[in-house]
Amino acid sequence: MSRFRAAKYAGLTVYTPGEQPRDRRYVKLNTNESPFPPCPEAVRAAAEEAERLQLYSDPTGKALKDALAERYGVEPENVFLANGSDDILSFAFQLFGEKGVSYADVTYGFYPVFADLHGTSARVIPLREDYTLDIPAFRAAPGMAVIANPNAPTGIEAPQEELISLIESDPDRVVLIDEAYVDFGAVSCVPLIRRYDNLLVVQTFSKARSMAGARLGFALADAGLIEDLETIRCCTNPYNVNRMTMAAAVAALKNDEYNMGHCAVVAQTRGKVAAALREMGFFVADSRANFLFARPPRGGGKALYLALKERGVLVRFLAGERTQDFVRVTIGSEEEMDIFLRETRSVLKEMEA
Amino acid sequence: MSRFRAAKYAGLTVYTPGEQPRDRRYVKLNTNESPFPPCPEAVRAAAEEAERLQLYSDPTGKALKDALAERYGVEPENVFLANGSDDILSFAFQLFGEKGVSYADVTYGFYPVFADLHGTSARVIPLREDYTLDIPAFRAAPGMAVIANPNAPTGIEAPQEELISLIESDPDRVVLIDEAYVDFGAVSCVPLIRRYDNLLVVQTFSKARSMAGARLGFALADAGLIEDLETIRCCTNPYNVNRMTMAAAVAALKNDEYNMGHCAVVAQTRGKVAAALREMGFFVADSRANFLFARPPRGGGKALYLALKERGVLVRFLAGERTQDFVRVTIGSEEEMDIFLRETRSVLKEMEA
Repeated sequence: MSRFRAAKYAGLTVYTPGEQPRDRRYVKLNTNESPFPPCPEAVRAAAEEAERLQLYSDPTGKALKDALAERYGVEPENVFLANGSDDILSFAFQLFGEKGVSYADVTYGFYPVFADLHGTSARVIPLREDYTLDIPAFRAAPGMAVIANPNAPTGIEAPQEELISLIESDPDRVVLIDEAYVDFGAVSCVPLIRRYDNLLVVQTFSKARSMAGARLGFALADAGLIEDLETIRCCTNPYNVNRMTMAAAVAALKNDEYNMGHCAVVAQTRGKVAAALREMGFFVADSRANFLFARPPRGGGKALYLALKERGVLVRFLAGERTQDFVRVTIGSEEEMDIFLRETRSVLKEMEA
Repeated sequence: MSRFRAAKYAGLTVYTPGEQPRDRRYVKLNTNESPFPPCPEAVRAAAEEAERLQLYSDPTGKALKDALAERYGVEPENVFLANGSDDILSFAFQLFGEKGVSYADVTYGFYPVFADLHGTSARVIPLREDYTLDIPAFRAAPGMAVIANPNAPTGIEAPQEELISLIESDPDRVVLIDEAYVDFGAVSCVPLIRRYDNLLVVQTFSKARSMAGARLGFALADAGLIEDLETIRCCTNPYNVNRMTMAAAVAALKNDEYNMGHCAVVAQTRGKVAAALREMGFFVADSRANFLFARPPRGGGKALYLALKERGVLVRFLAGERTQDFVRVTIGSEEEMDIFLRETRSVLKEMEA
């Protein structure tokens, strides 16, 4: 840290993204990327737009807001766009965390980082013994509730009636539902935004639409919350989404069955991999996301992560009392998962010996 | 504003970007975009990368940092990357504005917005009578000095020896030089970053490299300042630059003569347009940027802006005591500038009548 940095940012907690090693080729199952390429229409639209980069992107994002509004049955005024959904989460902590925020002890690792960055007081709600979200406990916490649904890294979905009871428990509290993984088999809260003006649903093109490298997140909510987000966006970076991504996303939405079909394939593969792991003696959480949170029968999470890495398979290990016995495994292609299962079997056998 | 928004963000000043009207085709000289397309290698690289969007971009930006370091004769640890240079400016206000910030009364309109957003106390330093930056006055102001060089909307360059005297006046003050327009004919402070660890130079691919729509800003500074910026980046959005832009920028730097040659063409056109305007009786500031700040002999800035807009030519009018007599005109292609000059002559004639 330099001598110039403001004192209040001296001890910032930094988010650690999944490793992107360049030392060799890995079967990469550690950052929840899609095994499928983006849809051809999106690739074409981005390539065409690359020829017009001398012009700024539309700061209002009109074409893309219109397309998302149509896709989700809402109005353009209910849509917010950003350079990845992390930017939206950060804005929300900044804007709506005045009375504090609450999030689970085991959830997306960026929430504590945002709370720290924006000086928001955080209430951490432990998951239940069975790793499900303790939604009733959120009702007692002051301020904004932040819930990943399905949750990460567990993949477990919260029942919608519990989420509704949380939303209804305090109309002056914002409930942020982070639906980054919703398209892999969970029930979305998007239809509820018409009913509740304190509900903020955040989604992304990174996972279900194979566009992690394009950087596009969006939020759906009542026009009031969207207007707050628009204000802060225009105070930081009004041209936050680039032209190529904007065009690619509009094109992708015209053929959303392509991506939604891939999500169904991922869900199917997930079922097979979960069954195979359980057969090996793993505990596997019931995932509705494009990853599995799995506890090996012996050795713990770190040993398995390291042994697999040595064999060219990259999974995610998350330190911490309640996660260290697990690995989080992205669902890749059938071929990739076959390699993962084969190597995992072999590692377990070695450990047994 | 919703009832959920934190009180401290109730009255935010919002930055107003140049208008992007869709009602008809304009000769668009209002947002300082380049009249030239991005270099073909950049277009190709972006298009190829669009096929790999399912993967996150490299959060360390290694390839691009290496390329920029080579281009500017510095080390990769001296380079910072962001989704447009506005993000860098915002981070700098947040990190280095603890003791306040100072900027000119007539300068980039985003500086007051950042000061307001981050709750930074601002000292506004009036330009001199002749619209030049009063650098000596900055020395007396506490905290970070923020100087656009060349300045916007005037285009006037500050003498480097004055900037050095400011940098040297207080080694504990960060001096941020915003060089968005430097490649159109001004002297860059980049070589000084080896000598001064309190100097932060911010540049962009939006203007000189015809990539406004790709969103890429970068900063060059001592490794200490860069590390501070990296910390806050990793607390908000570690994947802030998308894959396509990253690849396009690396490709563009391999053929930087293409873009630098276009900057020279713009500078030449600028000279001709300035001469023509002066002949019509305009006062035209001595610009080293890709725009001209010009005061018509009669009617004021707004009337000229409106009359030109009606004729299909879009220039920028900036309200405010010291700018309202002027228009800011982006230097476009020769053809565009011929149309601008023709229509301006015609407007002046009409006003005379």
